[in-house]
Amino acid sequence: MWTVRREKYLPEENLVYETIFTLANGYLSLRGTEEFSSRAMRGTYVAGIFDKHHAQVTELVNLPDPLRFAIYVDNEPLSLDYSNLKKYERTLDMENGLLNSLYEFEVNEKTILVESQRFVSRANLHRFGVRYKITPKFNGKIVVESCIDANTYNGYLDPINKVQHYEILDSKDLEPGIIVLVKTHDKGHNIAIATYISGKYEDGENALKFRKFRKIGDNPQESYTIFVKENQSIIIEKFGSIYTSLDVEIENLVERTVCELESFLKDTFDKELDIHAKIVQKTWDDMDIVIEGDETAQVGIRFNLFHLYQCAPDNPKVSIGARGLHGEGYKGHVFWDTEIFMFPFFLYTLPEYAKNLLLYRYNTLPGARRNAQMNGFKGAQFPWESADEGLEVTPKWGEDYLGNPVRIWTGDEEFHINSDIAVALVHYHTVTKDDQFMVDYGVEMLLETGKFWESRLEYNEKEDRYEIKRVIGPDEFHEHVDNNVYTNYLAKWNLLKAVEYYNWIREKSPVKFEKLKTLLGLTDEEVNSWVEKAEKIYIPRKPGEKLIEQFEGYFKLEDIEITEWDENGLPKWPKGLDLTKLGETQLIKQPDVVMLMLVLPEEFTFEEMKVNYEYYEKRTMHKSSLSPSMYSIMGLKVGDTHNAYRYFLKTVLVDLEDNQGNTNNGFHAASAGGAWQSVVYGFAGMELEKDGSLKFNPWLPEHWKSLSFKIHYAGKPIKVSITKEKIAFESETELEVEVKGRKYKINCGKTEVQLV
Amino acid sequence: MWTVRREKYLPEENLVYETIFTLANGYLSLRGTEEFSSRAMRGTYVAGIFDKHHAQVTELVNLPDPLRFAIYVDNEPLSLDYSNLKKYERTLDMENGLLNSLYEFEVNEKTILVESQRFVSRANLHRFGVRYKITPKFNGKIVVESCIDANTYNGYLDPINKVQHYEILDSKDLEPGIIVLVKTHDKGHNIAIATYISGKYEDGENALKFRKFRKIGDNPQESYTIFVKENQSIIIEKFGSIYTSLDVEIENLVERTVCELESFLKDTFDKELDIHAKIVQKTWDDMDIVIEGDETAQVGIRFNLFHLYQCAPDNPKVSIGARGLHGEGYKGHVFWDTEIFMFPFFLYTLPEYAKNLLLYRYNTLPGARRNAQMNGFKGAQFPWESADEGLEVTPKWGEDYLGNPVRIWTGDEEFHINSDIAVALVHYHTVTKDDQFMVDYGVEMLLETGKFWESRLEYNEKEDRYEIKRVIGPDEFHEHVDNNVYTNYLAKWNLLKAVEYYNWIREKSPVKFEKLKTLLGLTDEEVNSWVEKAEKIYIPRKPGEKLIEQFEGYFKLEDIEITEWDENGLPKWPKGLDLTKLGETQLIKQPDVVMLMLVLPEEFTFEEMKVNYEYYEKRTMHKSSLSPSMYSIMGLKVGDTHNAYRYFLKTVLVDLEDNQGNTNNGFHAASAGGAWQSVVYGFAGMELEKDGSLKFNPWLPEHWKSLSFKIHYAGKPIKVSITKEKIAFESETELEVEVKGRKYKINCGKTEVQLV
Repeated sequence: MWTVRREKYLPEENLVYETIFTLANGYLSLRGTEEFSSRAMRGTYVAGIFDKHHAQVTELVNLPDPLRFAIYVDNEPLSLDYSNLKKYERTLDMENGLLNSLYEFEVNEKTILVESQRFVSRANLHRFGVRYKITPKFNGKIVVESCIDANTYNGYLDPINKVQHYEILDSKDLEPGIIVLVKTHDKGHNIAIATYISGKYEDGENALKFRKFRKIGDNPQESYTIFVKENQSIIIEKFGSIYTSLDVEIENLVERTVCELESFLKDTFDKELDIHAKIVQKTWDDMDIVIEGDETAQVGIRFNLFHLYQCAPDNPKVSIGARGLHGEGYKGHVFWDTEIFMFPFFLYTLPEYAKNLLLYRYNTLPGARRNAQMNGFKGAQFPWESADEGLEVTPKWGEDYLGNPVRIWTGDEEFHINSDIAVALVHYHTVTKDDQFMVDYGVEMLLETGKFWESRLEYNEKEDRYEIKRVIGPDEFHEHVDNNVYTNYLAKWNLLKAVEYYNWIREKSPVKFEKLKTLLGLTDEEVNSWVEKAEKIYIPRKPGEKLIEQFEGYFKLEDIEITEWDENGLPKWPKGLDLTKLGETQLIKQPDVVMLMLVLPEEFTFEEMKVNYEYYEKRTMHKSSLSPSMYSIMGLKVGDTHNAYRYFLKTVLVDLEDNQGNTNNGFHAASAGGAWQSVVYGFAGMELEKDGSLKFNPWLPEHWKSLSFKIHYAGKPIKVSITKEKIAFESETELEVEVKGRKYKINCGKTEVQLV
Repeated sequence: MWTVRREKYLPEENLVYETIFTLANGYLSLRGTEEFSSRAMRGTYVAGIFDKHHAQVTELVNLPDPLRFAIYVDNEPLSLDYSNLKKYERTLDMENGLLNSLYEFEVNEKTILVESQRFVSRANLHRFGVRYKITPKFNGKIVVESCIDANTYNGYLDPINKVQHYEILDSKDLEPGIIVLVKTHDKGHNIAIATYISGKYEDGENALKFRKFRKIGDNPQESYTIFVKENQSIIIEKFGSIYTSLDVEIENLVERTVCELESFLKDTFDKELDIHAKIVQKTWDDMDIVIEGDETAQVGIRFNLFHLYQCAPDNPKVSIGARGLHGEGYKGHVFWDTEIFMFPFFLYTLPEYAKNLLLYRYNTLPGARRNAQMNGFKGAQFPWESADEGLEVTPKWGEDYLGNPVRIWTGDEEFHINSDIAVALVHYHTVTKDDQFMVDYGVEMLLETGKFWESRLEYNEKEDRYEIKRVIGPDEFHEHVDNNVYTNYLAKWNLLKAVEYYNWIREKSPVKFEKLKTLLGLTDEEVNSWVEKAEKIYIPRKPGEKLIEQFEGYFKLEDIEITEWDENGLPKWPKGLDLTKLGETQLIKQPDVVMLMLVLPEEFTFEEMKVNYEYYEKRTMHKSSLSPSMYSIMGLKVGDTHNAYRYFLKTVLVDLEDNQGNTNNGFHAASAGGAWQSVVYGFAGMELEKDGSLKFNPWLPEHWKSLSFKIHYAGKPIKVSITKEKIAFESETELEVEVKGRKYKINCGKTEVQLV
């Protein structure tokens, strides 16, 4: 079960499949567009290449499309729009990181079979390739045409706001091969993209007999006449390379891109594809989750992990946007989605990428410091939406559920992103034991976010407490709320962790400690004052009451429970509800109190979790793809296994069944991270204790035969295999784990623990 | 019967309908492309704008397309490729020169009706417009987007040879409105195209609420959000203007184009459309042919006349290409098609255009003189294919019927174009009595072609005769033939006419006569010598034998008669025929001997016509659209009325039923001229006598109730109405005509002559 297949061509499904079939390597992403269709949101993205120009905010730039390819029979283009399509099949091969396509067209009673294989190399991030096997069922000739399309733009799904972020600096013939050099309007990033095609008959003889180069509106095209014989295939290999001025000096950019293309040719298409596939396969060794007995869940979870991996950056200056590198949803911006939802997957399976994700935040500290400064705070205020510089890039205006323009307040009020990053930092350290990282980068971020929170607190003299007013918590239906429990709880936690690590680094690295004090202008007195302040942060929680009020006054709002669900099993808006006044009801977009209990599970009891789950679940509209996975985990924790499994399926299938209706605009990366958490934190019941040790409390659905996965802990892999009867650990190191409340010593090699 | 309707949308028919629905005004042509389809050979042509660049030969340039327009519902583009199309109808209104379209789309269960009306103004040649009436069946908003597409190119039907002939010099926002300025690569023609859209609700209130301008790859776009209510229509008017550096100085080009756009706005869309329609209607008064009792023939003939009129230039520096201004077939080149096939229509109905067509040849005399010089001849050698300068632009290489590359010899050997032009000149003078034209331009051309022929003759001492060897006659299956009777006969005729007009102008305008002698370096002795030479030109015709041998040795070729016809009623290749050796058979592409008898009918007897028609008709493959109309006329002359009507229908329907299979690449203009000739020379039996008088010998098919048309003779219109019983003339002047062998005096007013 390694494949996702599309067996029928319906143009209305193209955009969703383009997302599903996106190929990326953390650097370059090519949406899974159909070469032979006009119904396409062509998307070529390079992580970190942002620009603003006439767009509302800085956004990930849609670059020229190097995949354009046309085949002509009798001078008629093969077209999914209007040719006679006799066979069609497209398959994502997740095991090897390939997209395979098959088309059989008929033009003027001539049949032609086209099979293709596309990949974006994980071996050399600047390389991508497509191989076409063309088998005509006639004698004659065909024309093939390879183009780089520099008429791409951002905003296919929002046509009034279309923006082309680049100008074309050069577009030329490499004789053979073609290249385009573009420059983004504001930031002046230069990007060079080059392609070359070779063509051979099955006997290896060159098939490209007559070449023509042309430019059409600065789009370079090379085309060839090919003489064909019935049932004799032609193999066309398209080699591609791409570099940006973030990778190399502008003056060497074109040369480097051409040089890469030539090295790729020299290495051969086959070899590159082979090494790429081997890397992907090897990565599966670390990240795979095997679920026996549930094919849907098996393919679904792999689909999510595969695409998360595709987004994983080798570059510490970029992170993963809410929609991955797969589309333009949320404009390529990075949210808490990364640290809270995706991060655990990377942390436990591919920790080198987890480190890069944190380094991205470190590298955007200058922007975060500017945000704080501009808003009158201290330290660093990470932006709710982050692009390349760490500056706040949340749009100020959007549309509500009715299409009316509405002011977006999240960039002004959703402060919890700062402690979300702190949570990830501490989580990283606890799991990896990577002290050096904390010394070099981590503590600085904890101190800067601590400093921010300290300055953000408002002292209520009357109550002698600190409050945080006018915020938005994880549930964005409610804006300008006071003392949101998620925000306040984590602000407190962040401040205390900052103090803890201040003391930790004083011991660990006195030199760095001194440097940090100088750099950040800290005194012991100031930092120590955070403890008292943190303790005095108001958590709106009454002693003895397990149900926690999401924010001050929430329980006084109109109480509406959900009673109807749509065909996707997701809640329907209650009848008669005024969608412009959601904030006046207790309906929530996604978990908020429950979210807190998942982010810091060690801080809450089973009973507290159960009571809050039961209350809030009935009021959650799941208007965020981040929501179902979290309810799945909490459902498993509190014993609502039926709903938990349902939420789990919603989560793993969010893109495959497009159950949020917006997969066209990118992959739901946070949901994918949530899917991993659902399995590992939910079904396997893994939890990280305060002391850093692991506990497991597994529960498998009836039809699951087994569940297995690998985690990395303290730099070593541990394979975990669970059946209804037992849980087995294969470890390279000794450690102690707790299973169902009992502690076990895990030795090197395999250790089995009976569950029943 | 003024309309051609397309009632069903099948993408495979788009290109043919684009030709059928082309709108043009002799200056600007816009192919009838569908705005909402990707299956389109977008074509914007301006008469006279030629360029070569990487093309094989100089060709009519496909300019940026100003018709691009998109409508988005729920941000989804309305698309004929993939939207749900509920209603479709497209109608060419020939009476008014309009293209009307109707589409009903459904997107996300929202229905929207789009009706449009397009015109290319005959009132102001630089203006064109489209009006959209958009009626949503829902409340909400839509986005409209108007673009100028500067990614057009020549060669849609020959993709390996695609060429974009222009570079984009500028592309900008007129705030509101958009403009593109391009420059052709070789000749440096500058072309500016500007458009502007207005949008109003039915109550006249502005509907364009929110404007965005952008450039995507130098293509300017302006788009607007429009708030819509159920069943409340919005009227969008698109105003367009175009100028080239052939019209105005380059430095004033943009200003002039913008100024024209503003004047158009000031004049209003309605008024421009109204004046345009009135001009078209008025032209019908002169050019219409009314056939009662035969709807197919009626619509068919009007279709042909309408498109001929659309090509008619107001500019004496351009002529009409073989495929009109309707596509890229024959690269916009001018052939004998114009003088021999189209010219009679203009001469007799719209003589001011006939004059311009001849002036085009006069204005290209410098090129024709260079051709002669380069080929070692004297005088002026008009090119077989002519573009903007009169230089020979026939491609040297093409493809044979099997797709093999083949040397094209017509540019080297098809000399008869020179006497074809001479025929048109003399014809023009005879009919219009326009002496001034002959003095100013006509005689010079007759003398120069005479001089050419004199130098082209080869003296055969043995036979004491002049021969013309190694030529191609009208039948192009036979190359490098000697003494083609069509060529020799007309060379002789041309020389004698040259001498005749040499003497005529000596009398008529002694000053011009002297000037011409000086300019052309002529002496009386030289010109007089042409008479003797002409008389000695070998015409391969044996005394007493009526059947004429097409060229020396033709009768010795393998004799194959046609025995099978295709579904269009056109001959099939005889079985077993080697298509690379057509020249070794007596099969011919189109009439040659018969053609001569139609060009100079006064020179041949009825018997001669009959014998040759019967012989050659059986051997004619009609591989040229010029062929059926000619056999139709000759068939009527010799009494083969059944076949004549069949050929007539093939002719009038050549594009409407695409019976040559290549209407996609342009309108068959020569066939259209042939259709007019079929009616007037064929069914009405009109013939111009040597003395310049007219005779009529009508025959109407059984089901025709009547036939009427107008001709212009000596500057005055004469309306001719024919039934089975009688022929009526309505004249503004007195003249004598012959009807069925008897002479009648036609008075002012109406004169009837009984036929039975």
